[in-house]
Amino acid sequence: MQNGLELLASHACFDGEQRYYRHASRRVGLPMRFGLYLPPQAAGEGARLPVLFYLAGLTCTEETFAIKAGAQRWAAELGLVLVTPDTSPRGADLPGEAQSWDFGVGAGFYLDATRAPWRRHWRMETYLLDELLPLIGEQFPVDLQRAGVFGHSMGGHGALTLALRHPGMFRSVSALAPIAAPSRCPWGEKAFTGYLGDDRRAWAAHDATELMARQTEPPYPDGILVDQGLDDQFLAEQLHPHLLEAACAAVGQPLTLRRHAGYDHSYYFVASFVQDHLRFHAERLQKVGARRR
Amino acid sequence: MQNGLELLASHACFDGEQRYYRHASRRVGLPMRFGLYLPPQAAGEGARLPVLFYLAGLTCTEETFAIKAGAQRWAAELGLVLVTPDTSPRGADLPGEAQSWDFGVGAGFYLDATRAPWRRHWRMETYLLDELLPLIGEQFPVDLQRAGVFGHSMGGHGALTLALRHPGMFRSVSALAPIAAPSRCPWGEKAFTGYLGDDRRAWAAHDATELMARQTEPPYPDGILVDQGLDDQFLAEQLHPHLLEAACAAVGQPLTLRRHAGYDHSYYFVASFVQDHLRFHAERLQKVGARRR
Repeated sequence: MQNGLELLASHACFDGEQRYYRHASRRVGLPMRFGLYLPPQAAGEGARLPVLFYLAGLTCTEETFAIKAGAQRWAAELGLVLVTPDTSPRGADLPGEAQSWDFGVGAGFYLDATRAPWRRHWRMETYLLDELLPLIGEQFPVDLQRAGVFGHSMGGHGALTLALRHPGMFRSVSALAPIAAPSRCPWGEKAFTGYLGDDRRAWAAHDATELMARQTEPPYPDGILVDQGLDDQFLAEQLHPHLLEAACAAVGQPLTLRRHAGYDHSYYFVASFVQDHLRFHAERLQKVGARRR
Repeated sequence: MQNGLELLASHACFDGEQRYYRHASRRVGLPMRFGLYLPPQAAGEGARLPVLFYLAGLTCTEETFAIKAGAQRWAAELGLVLVTPDTSPRGADLPGEAQSWDFGVGAGFYLDATRAPWRRHWRMETYLLDELLPLIGEQFPVDLQRAGVFGHSMGGHGALTLALRHPGMFRSVSALAPIAAPSRCPWGEKAFTGYLGDDRRAWAAHDATELMARQTEPPYPDGILVDQGLDDQFLAEQLHPHLLEAACAAVGQPLTLRRHAGYDHSYYFVASFVQDHLRFHAERLQKVGARRR
């Protein structure tokens, strides 16, 4: 236990360390876990490395990406710290919290719920930005001026919406098969109704496509990268990347939306393209460093 | 269903395909599953690719390596087909078969049991060599003259012993944290007693160190690669790579035994070095091709 951080496990991995931590979250009011990959460069004296937050999808935990994506190989090469938060509070013991795989436990949607009973603990946005991010900045050799965010599916929604709602917090953003327009798909409708209520105006503030459409100038002039598999079983009903694409075009936001024949929604898809995402972020985060010098 | 092979799942992965199959095994007398990665080169007309069998450790399934090791990236680059068998029969419903994590289900030890009740279904050696290997050769674009084998922990034991017991079957062999001298460790003693009985002479025929010590000349003159983490929680009690090392030295068998400070027994270790193993096999299997031309 070090400053409230409990190290649960540490594994040597590509000359760095894959760690798992637990801490008592004040914002959530429950213990929260996260994964952290420290590349070999983190051992350098006075190191302050760029840091990339990965937000996972429905049913995942802080371990999923670290186990399945193979990203440590590229983080080690590029000198990126990877942080993988959990996908919701756990242990609140709310009625029905674990009845659905797409709502409640494992399905926090990276927002602060405003409806009872969820609003007490389901505060993932505040947790991530006001608690986890500063904690990572204080406890590890990272430079929060060079923080990026990406994610998969529900986590792609999280990455895009947090990056759009909090300008300047993240310097780069990308997504893999994101829920790009949650107000207009069953997963999003269910989650937003449950966490935010029936007023669709409240939903728009957590919908990447709606948030993009409101911009007056391109929020990420260095571009946004989105990968999407064309055999993704959720593409037609849940993901709607074309709506985000149209919103970006209207605002002049550069978007590289790559559509990949044959790929589905699984981590075999994520693993296949994760190297490109890490390079995308590393290039942009290095640029921030160069500007500041 | 195609020639008795039931395709359970297929995922695009690094421009190739990660597939899972089930088939009714005559040798085991039960349905068996395996994973198969076809790299992009497999789609070429008349392709006959080298094939690498990976044998997994205790508690694993045909999915473990395919999910956790990140090997498809390198198999795609090198043009290797990867085959990942399951680690034991399943569904036999023998008394106590699932009571231990290190015996019975998930713990086949890649041998044919001679003791009741195990001898009826627990025939992993015969299954792999007389059934799965030919099946792979018939059904997929592989060249069985260029087959290699490797594995982790119990699967490292399997790779080494099968390669030593069946000269010419595999052209290259390597292992990650193998149970290198199973006759002299608790895991091996429990498994061999249960599957083979109390006669330790029968054990020696399934012990990589004993098998190596019996050789009259180096069976793999192009070398054997073994990686071992020095923070492996099972190193001192279960693995004993130094005994294999001594046996190789006595026979003149070239062995590259790499001891890695800080690494444990997990798939974070496997993932960190899997690229080296795929390259090791690809180099040797390509040589076979060159010789035959």
